[in-house]
Amino acid sequence: MQKQTIQKVAIIGGTHGNELTGVYLAKKWIADNTEVQRENFAIEIFYANPEATDIMKRYVNQDLNRSFALADIQNPTLTNHEQTRAKELNTKIGPKDAKNPAYDFMIDMHSSTSNLGTNIIITDNDPYSLLVAGLMQEKDPSITITIGFEDRMEQPYITSLTPHAITLELGPIPQGVLRADTLKKMKDAMQNALDVIEALNNTDDFPDMSLSVYEMKRTLDYPKDANGNIIATIHPDREGGEFAEIKVGDPLFMDFDENTIYYEGDPAYTYFINEAAYYEKGIACMLVEKKVINI
Amino acid sequence: MQKQTIQKVAIIGGTHGNELTGVYLAKKWIADNTEVQRENFAIEIFYANPEATDIMKRYVNQDLNRSFALADIQNPTLTNHEQTRAKELNTKIGPKDAKNPAYDFMIDMHSSTSNLGTNIIITDNDPYSLLVAGLMQEKDPSITITIGFEDRMEQPYITSLTPHAITLELGPIPQGVLRADTLKKMKDAMQNALDVIEALNNTDDFPDMSLSVYEMKRTLDYPKDANGNIIATIHPDREGGEFAEIKVGDPLFMDFDENTIYYEGDPAYTYFINEAAYYEKGIACMLVEKKVINI
Repeated sequence: MQKQTIQKVAIIGGTHGNELTGVYLAKKWIADNTEVQRENFAIEIFYANPEATDIMKRYVNQDLNRSFALADIQNPTLTNHEQTRAKELNTKIGPKDAKNPAYDFMIDMHSSTSNLGTNIIITDNDPYSLLVAGLMQEKDPSITITIGFEDRMEQPYITSLTPHAITLELGPIPQGVLRADTLKKMKDAMQNALDVIEALNNTDDFPDMSLSVYEMKRTLDYPKDANGNIIATIHPDREGGEFAEIKVGDPLFMDFDENTIYYEGDPAYTYFINEAAYYEKGIACMLVEKKVINI
Repeated sequence: MQKQTIQKVAIIGGTHGNELTGVYLAKKWIADNTEVQRENFAIEIFYANPEATDIMKRYVNQDLNRSFALADIQNPTLTNHEQTRAKELNTKIGPKDAKNPAYDFMIDMHSSTSNLGTNIIITDNDPYSLLVAGLMQEKDPSITITIGFEDRMEQPYITSLTPHAITLELGPIPQGVLRADTLKKMKDAMQNALDVIEALNNTDDFPDMSLSVYEMKRTLDYPKDANGNIIATIHPDREGGEFAEIKVGDPLFMDFDENTIYYEGDPAYTYFINEAAYYEKGIACMLVEKKVINI
């Protein structure tokens, strides 16, 4: 693939206020960025939503990480806390639709109650971002890569502000909690990402690559009663089963009388199982498909 | 000890809005209480703080489970959401200072991000409550018992509304999450408690008993900088180490540069390690002492 040089990397923590791993690393690196500095590109750390952390919630008014669609950040009538913050971040990091935005790469640090390990999400069909993820996975084979391509201008995610970007999703960890092991894993993933970008800036050898990825297909809702109340939770056999295959007849949910509810759809892999933040939407997990893509 | 007959048991879920195990079991049993009914006493289920669950927080204005001191529930100037709800619950379940309150036993269902297993807390030096806990532990030796006696009238906990009570604390589980295994453990603990009360109502044989318990001593705060920011988290060697002994020189915290901070106090046992709800108070864990008490 074509050579690409990165000049400025935006490192984001606390896009969701109660995902403390990213919050604390952002605060640490805002105070002293020595360990994330590199020779051949500039970095800047952004603590995305301190007001959400203050109330230890994912967000104040609406999910900041669903607030970056171009039409929304350009709409002057959208003025709640996250809509306003999205506009500010767009001005500092983008503008999203500029030919030359202020930053050309973004790393957005998230955590999850799901058993994700170290997972990279890429939502833009951008070969450079995929190459970074692939090279990170070569260094750390425990890393998984999830893709779900959407038009960058229409995407609501903060990572859509820059032409190249990855989201880091680490779990399992409760909301509102710090763990030394998760902090270490996030720092390792960050060092891995920054090392890969630095090495790519130093070479003209941009390899073609085959990547084993999981592609997002759809969400699976919890079973509900007529009033919309959840009537079952994840089956113990499926709990923690990120990137495990699921087939017709596999136990999926267990109701509150310990009856098993079985999966009925096409074969797939489960992802984002029992994420606390998705209860408000009634989402039990996501289904992904395993595939190989060539870049 | 002296024979005691229980007539009405109050079962409480959702005292903390984001501890969903208790919330969902309370809702289930309010709809159909068959599985918690017993022959020789009456039960009633209370969903303590639905408004806190609606916003998926521990509380709306203040911790409901710190709102039941007699002076507070009798103070007409205290009128925020939880203060008002505490008064309502006192009217329905107590009154706390009555000779014959409406309910004589309470079971309050909680969950924790700490690795508590199935833990019973008793905060009133009441032989009957301790006997129930001891007999529950005989049936399920994995159960731990924590005591921290305070004058019942001065206590701020919901369990102080009734002359006899236990708190069930189950973990680890994130806030805002349901897990089939935790639901099952809570149901098992509830059945155990109700079976013990039923059996005691049917006998005149109230045994003297020796109980192995952990007594609350003090809280341990996170290390902080001059601005009050947490600068370390629980050391990986201590994470999950509920009821494990800690001695001078044992690793306790790890700062964000992976430096170890060692424990400096008297020998003790650690409890409620890394509970999400205690970050706002800066509490890293509690220290308890292992002892045997006779009832």
